[in-house]
Amino acid sequence: MISFENDYNTGAHPQIMARLLETNLEPLSGYGSDPYCESARRKIREACGCPEAEVEFLTGGTQTNAAVISSMLRDYEGVIAARTGHVSIHEAGAVEFTGHKVLELSQKEGKIVPEELKSYLTGFYADENHEHMVFPGMVYLSHPTEYGTLYTRAELEKIREICHSYKIPLFLDGARLGYGLMSRQTDLTLQDIAGLCDVFYIGGTKVGALCGEAVVFTKQNRPPHFTNSIKKRGALLAKGRLLGVQFDTLFTDGLYFKISRHAIDMAEELKEILESRKIPFYLKSPTNQQFVILENEWLKELKKDVMFSFWEQYDETHTVARFVTSWATTREDLEALRQVLDGLPGA
Amino acid sequence: MISFENDYNTGAHPQIMARLLETNLEPLSGYGSDPYCESARRKIREACGCPEAEVEFLTGGTQTNAAVISSMLRDYEGVIAARTGHVSIHEAGAVEFTGHKVLELSQKEGKIVPEELKSYLTGFYADENHEHMVFPGMVYLSHPTEYGTLYTRAELEKIREICHSYKIPLFLDGARLGYGLMSRQTDLTLQDIAGLCDVFYIGGTKVGALCGEAVVFTKQNRPPHFTNSIKKRGALLAKGRLLGVQFDTLFTDGLYFKISRHAIDMAEELKEILESRKIPFYLKSPTNQQFVILENEWLKELKKDVMFSFWEQYDETHTVARFVTSWATTREDLEALRQVLDGLPGA
Amino acid sequence: MISFENDYNTGAHPQIMARLLETNLEPLSGYGSDPYCESARRKIREACGCPEAEVEFLTGGTQTNAAVISSMLRDYEGVIAARTGHVSIHEAGAVEFTGHKVLELSQKEGKIVPEELKSYLTGFYADENHEHMVFPGMVYLSHPTEYGTLYTRAELEKIREICHSYKIPLFLDGARLGYGLMSRQTDLTLQDIAGLCDVFYIGGTKVGALCGEAVVFTKQNRPPHFTNSIKKRGALLAKGRLLGVQFDTLFTDGLYFKISRHAIDMAEELKEILESRKIPFYLKSPTNQQFVILENEWLKELKKDVMFSFWEQYDETHTVARFVTSWATTREDLEALRQVLDGLPGA
Amino acid sequence: MISFENDYNTGAHPQIMARLLETNLEPLSGYGSDPYCESARRKIREACGCPEAEVEFLTGGTQTNAAVISSMLRDYEGVIAARTGHVSIHEAGAVEFTGHKVLELSQKEGKIVPEELKSYLTGFYADENHEHMVFPGMVYLSHPTEYGTLYTRAELEKIREICHSYKIPLFLDGARLGYGLMSRQTDLTLQDIAGLCDVFYIGGTKVGALCGEAVVFTKQNRPPHFTNSIKKRGALLAKGRLLGVQFDTLFTDGLYFKISRHAIDMAEELKEILESRKIPFYLKSPTNQQFVILENEWLKELKKDVMFSFWEQYDETHTVARFVTSWATTREDLEALRQVLDGLPGA
Repeated sequence: MISFENDYNTGAHPQIMARLLETNLEPLSGYGSDPYCESARRKIREACGCPEAEVEFLTGGTQTNAAVISSMLRDYEGVIAARTGHVSIHEAGAVEFTGHKVLELSQKEGKIVPEELKSYLTGFYADENHEHMVFPGMVYLSHPTEYGTLYTRAELEKIREICHSYKIPLFLDGARLGYGLMSRQTDLTLQDIAGLCDVFYIGGTKVGALCGEAVVFTKQNRPPHFTNSIKKRGALLAKGRLLGVQFDTLFTDGLYFKISRHAIDMAEELKEILESRKIPFYLKSPTNQQFVILENEWLKELKKDVMFSFWEQYDETHTVARFVTSWATTREDLEALRQVLDGLPGA
Repeated sequence: MISFENDYNTGAHPQIMARLLETNLEPLSGYGSDPYCESARRKIREACGCPEAEVEFLTGGTQTNAAVISSMLRDYEGVIAARTGHVSIHEAGAVEFTGHKVLELSQKEGKIVPEELKSYLTGFYADENHEHMVFPGMVYLSHPTEYGTLYTRAELEKIREICHSYKIPLFLDGARLGYGLMSRQTDLTLQDIAGLCDVFYIGGTKVGALCGEAVVFTKQNRPPHFTNSIKKRGALLAKGRLLGVQFDTLFTDGLYFKISRHAIDMAEELKEILESRKIPFYLKSPTNQQFVILENEWLKELKKDVMFSFWEQYDETHTVARFVTSWATTREDLEALRQVLDGLPGA
Repeated sequence: MISFENDYNTGAHPQIMARLLETNLEPLSGYGSDPYCESARRKIREACGCPEAEVEFLTGGTQTNAAVISSMLRDYEGVIAARTGHVSIHEAGAVEFTGHKVLELSQKEGKIVPEELKSYLTGFYADENHEHMVFPGMVYLSHPTEYGTLYTRAELEKIREICHSYKIPLFLDGARLGYGLMSRQTDLTLQDIAGLCDVFYIGGTKVGALCGEAVVFTKQNRPPHFTNSIKKRGALLAKGRLLGVQFDTLFTDGLYFKISRHAIDMAEELKEILESRKIPFYLKSPTNQQFVILENEWLKELKKDVMFSFWEQYDETHTVARFVTSWATTREDLEALRQVLDGLPGA
Repeated sequence: MISFENDYNTGAHPQIMARLLETNLEPLSGYGSDPYCESARRKIREACGCPEAEVEFLTGGTQTNAAVISSMLRDYEGVIAARTGHVSIHEAGAVEFTGHKVLELSQKEGKIVPEELKSYLTGFYADENHEHMVFPGMVYLSHPTEYGTLYTRAELEKIREICHSYKIPLFLDGARLGYGLMSRQTDLTLQDIAGLCDVFYIGGTKVGALCGEAVVFTKQNRPPHFTNSIKKRGALLAKGRLLGVQFDTLFTDGLYFKISRHAIDMAEELKEILESRKIPFYLKSPTNQQFVILENEWLKELKKDVMFSFWEQYDETHTVARFVTSWATTREDLEALRQVLDGLPGA
């Protein structure tokens, strides 16, 4: 079956598997203190153009978001996020589990609008009751967003400036960062992101790894005893090598960027195929996730041969569906999709 | 200075003070096990027409909301509330501190709209990703709301029915319940509320007590070992008598209702005074809180003689202000306000 | 019935009740911003000889312990306490509810032994695994302890020095502080305590108030936005005046000390009465709590006329019982006890 | 360098690596819903002789302990554990982070003594203050313990019976379960453990996997919406296949038992080597961890050629050191150790 279901439905990139195998029997110290973690840290600092960055590895996105947010916020603070942000709706309340509120802002195509952020912060401090309210203590962005959209450099700079003037850190969730960096429609590099954010993470799980996210603290602002804090959250992997070897491989010879670019190439072809079949887009994104509107009966037919995701109901007879490419998508997958579509009546 | 600032700026009703004094030196057992607590519980059960109700006393509203919500929700659940609900914005994240999310719905004049609630719940269960989301585990209403508005019986019945069909409890925050019950524009009695809600509280702090809220579990649904749970939250008062004597007094000879009705009478006169001065209303409520729009310079003048609350900025030159009556407001206060207004140029 | 059950079984000292009554109808701003709170803060700073101290009022002991500890600890820290400490066993897990561990030390008559504290801290940092352990981030003492015992000045100085050398704050739970300060066997004054501790509280609930504890941060170390943090914990009283008026009265003309001394006088007489009846002591304390060993059948007889507390089983036929005096104990109570004992066979 | 440092310093068993590689590019659904997880569940149920068991996969031990404990306890409950239990001291407060107390019992060689457990529970319910205490809501054991010791069947049956009579579940932490089951000195089988415990886990991380623990709920007592609860704790792995494939391999043809037995064989030889060198044992365990007392200077020499763990200081001139074998220990490792010891002066 051809699958465009998501970007985490295969294992790891073959080069990662090969390195895991090669290093498998070396006795190494645990909890992220092995030489592969150290090497991966060094390469990531270099790729970020940020020699003083502190890099830590965690296992998954929700875990990373909750650990970073809750160990950086003060007791009386919450995190600002778009209402559609991953931390707002799709993490089962992981941030709240740590005792902090997600302060939800309205959004546009999954993105926070700088003007709204500013107006929210101004309003907060103007309110005489703000001692009874949750202080805004951090801004959370996802880039790409849950809709595959991207912040422009200008937008990110504006948000950074607002954060700066309110002295709150800017955190960027890069679960799909590679796909954002390799988009044909972005003006942001990894170095830009490292320069503009106080902390961000480079997603591995959705970009070629079995698991793993690399958190980058860019301003020597890693919370003190962070290892202890992540242990306390059940997030410290005993065999840290599993994360170290993977990120070391991803950041050797630009593998992370190459495989991300491949996914983008596949996504651009996917868009062409969908367009050529006159399938209406709900949101045509510049990254690896595409959202289309399908008639329900037609969708059922398509589902017999192709895997994709239900996103939301569009109206009584139509559904928004998501098609995703990844580092593992092949030209054969696209060709097969093309043929399935050819065999169906018009969408 | 005349004060319409809020409904908790004086001490307790004189009858309460008298009873506290009379009983002051009696040696009584602690933590809510004294005969005054017992008597108050009996009288409240009777007033609610709910002989099997379980009644517990806590100290303040935020504490009560957090304790009730967090001890009734299951691990994977959150509480639905209006975006303007007290638990959503004015409790400094007290619900989130217990590890649970407040699931915010849009609102109308501070009220949840039954249709939106239904649509939210339907949407939740339709979403294939709902295992990654916070389950809706309770509905929270305030009655009167933060805007002084009231649910009608029909609205409350609809909400109750929706809760029932999704098997989630309905919790009503009655911090100002007395003022709601004695409104001239309500069709809901205390018995109705006890019949429709799974749990609610009868506010004391804002209705004549020094402190104290009486939580009523109407369906023999008090969480097991609730005393232990509230101790764990720092909410168990050693001298429970302080709460028992107050509520026993409030529910003797209908004092709670009488003093609430007085506040409503005062509020009706207040509305007339404000109207007669052509002061535009932002929201003319059926209870003891009234919201008016004041020109900023004029507001400054008024502030010299009258205390009231800033609510929010209306536009660049106007402000929404809140005027509140309570059991302690006197006709002299109103007369004094009238005279101050007479001495000012037209609003 | 004569009661030596505990020190919180009556209401408030009559002078407090009188002041509450006098100020009852004054309109005052809420949440601790009223002039009585301000005056009480000033008087407490003065009594502590600590002009720069920051004073905050909370409602009860468990609440205060949990709020102070959890807002001062960092994410990766826990609080050290004696295994018999109030936070360790009698607060239903209130500290743990905030996400922090109580690190329990063995104890002697309810007190932490300085040498053990030192050895614990040395051991912690010697352990190679300490990144997987809870960092000791504060020392909690109760003074008087749960057994009525007191730290000497020399002991407190040693503990203070240890804390200082490990850079962790010293917190003293003074739920019964007055009774400690007025003990005939103490060499510690309120000023000493303010000088030696980073934060402590002056108990009201057990020393003459209806409720209330005054937290004193002695080193300009009040956590930022502490009001917000206590609101978040449901611990911010709307009518802060209730606490302000009480502490203002307690710290006017040395009332707090006078009534505490009275309780000590009563306790000394109580000890004499018990001794003269040859009742064996389990622990004869220098403060207002006395622990005796009673034969079970004899205890039952005594219980018919006198209220006291079960403490713990001593052996199969004996029980440890606690007798407590307070500011409200009268000479008549003691006389009545004497007569009851006279009427019983030898203990 | 020869390593006896711990049982998680290598990667995964080669058969696991091979299966991961073989299945790497299959598109599979996420979050534990893939066929390998399903197959692993089936095989584990079979191995446990417990057809109705519910099996869930998590990533690591601390995470598993905190997730299982906190989702099974009620609000007012804590978990009983030995003072030396992993949850008590080496998880950085992960249980407390979820708002629950670890109720620590004294221990013997790392084990809870049934009589002490009983006495604790009896004492708790005898205490009149127990409404102010944390209710004992679960018993946590590790088997093997942190000292490598094992419960006998008689001990486990007694503990089970006590739990049963107090209606609290028994949870067994099997991070090293394989090594316990294959010990030459155990009378407990996997089926026995499944029969006696309400919930337990089969450790993968320390027994041949890259990561992963298989939780077995034996009494159809998996907490409702457990997936949601573990997502909320950041513990839900997107590529659940990583856990499924590993456990499927471990439970195919008894691999889990075979590799565990190998580690035991290696441990028995290790004991012989250490004994033959007259190295004094601190604790000679029946499993894969051995504790010896080494003179500090001698230890330094040994460290040049052999990796092992510091356990604790024994006295001023001696140290307790831990030597660990695992599935990956080879006869060559033992031979090399023998030679190093031969080259050193007597211990």
